[in-house]
Amino acid sequence: MARNKYPEETEKKILDVAEKLFLGNGYDHTTIQDIIDQLGGLTKGVIYHHFSSKKAIFDKVLERKYGNEVSLRLDRLEGLTGFQKIRELSLMTMRATDHQMLAYSARTLLSNPQMVGNQYKTAYETAIPLMKDFVEEGISDGSIITEFPQEIAELLVLSTNIWLAPLIYELSKKEILHKLLFFQQLYEGVNFPLIDDEYIGACLMMYEVIQKKIN
Amino acid sequence: MARNKYPEETEKKILDVAEKLFLGNGYDHTTIQDIIDQLGGLTKGVIYHHFSSKKAIFDKVLERKYGNEVSLRLDRLEGLTGFQKIRELSLMTMRATDHQMLAYSARTLLSNPQMVGNQYKTAYETAIPLMKDFVEEGISDGSIITEFPQEIAELLVLSTNIWLAPLIYELSKKEILHKLLFFQQLYEGVNFPLIDDEYIGACLMMYEVIQKKIN
Repeated sequence: MARNKYPEETEKKILDVAEKLFLGNGYDHTTIQDIIDQLGGLTKGVIYHHFSSKKAIFDKVLERKYGNEVSLRLDRLEGLTGFQKIRELSLMTMRATDHQMLAYSARTLLSNPQMVGNQYKTAYETAIPLMKDFVEEGISDGSIITEFPQEIAELLVLSTNIWLAPLIYELSKKEILHKLLFFQQLYEGVNFPLIDDEYIGACLMMYEVIQKKIN
Repeated sequence: MARNKYPEETEKKILDVAEKLFLGNGYDHTTIQDIIDQLGGLTKGVIYHHFSSKKAIFDKVLERKYGNEVSLRLDRLEGLTGFQKIRELSLMTMRATDHQMLAYSARTLLSNPQMVGNQYKTAYETAIPLMKDFVEEGISDGSIITEFPQEIAELLVLSTNIWLAPLIYELSKKEILHKLLFFQQLYEGVNFPLIDDEYIGACLMMYEVIQKKIN
């Protein structure tokens, strides 16, 4: 396959192949060479023309997948209250096992401080503003009672992305459950009863899928 | 001043001068050249022999200062309950305005994702284990009632170092107070009434000192 006039198509091919490999073998166990081998003659030079590194390909795969998923999910929230939207979005995210497995396959990235820092930055730029909108919707429709929409949004995103996620590999199922029970108490204390048996079940199921896939 | 036989002394001189400059003008407004100018003839080469960068000097200044402070503070906690130890240590830390000003003078570092990631790593390596020991002491002496010593320790450190600290520049005094009131509710919900008027007062005072110094 020679470099073609349609860079978007080449990029799409690279991303498709990379996504399949990342999903099958995990980020850590996929090399740039593995990706090239599946691209039928595309050279390393062409790949590096489009992406600076394996990490750059991975980021783009996640971004593409996540972007599609989020719009699909947001469509399915129509007609719900603000509180229900947050709850449903949390459940849908945990049940998107493909996406979770992809993200968690990058064990070498997760344990990297730079990655945690980037998660933090992204949280404040995208996820927290989205959550805050839902909290404010919930305040308007009466499904949420709080004087702290910004802080609730921060708690929602930071507790998941910064507090729980980077620890997933370190903890046993029992420890994850223990942490979830603490989060349940934490959320209830600020009058935001997000975490119930269904939420805990979805989180533990996600945890099992990840552990099974990775180990 | 020629390179001498006593590298520790040279290092100490560099750190003393750098600390004074960082404290006076802030990290962002201090250059390596400023440090050299105050060292009476020490060359750039000698500095770089000891430290790879301005950031490396800063890290060492903080580490030296913080290390000394922590042992001083721990000495003053003798005889207190586990809960009181955590409370006193929090108050002492917020009141250590020299140290806080030094840390917060590095605005260019604070807003950097890498720095947040490093804070996270340090939190789990040092601050959280220390806090967990105090929580467990509190459970033994009856001053703390919780089934979640690890999670309380994580909440203590993450809420301060990862949630509140990097936002200090972004928020007005009113917004800081609002966040503290949310934290108060959050902590009370998990049966850990850390934040009262005295705590809020100390935090707002620290905030004022930082803002006044920096702006």
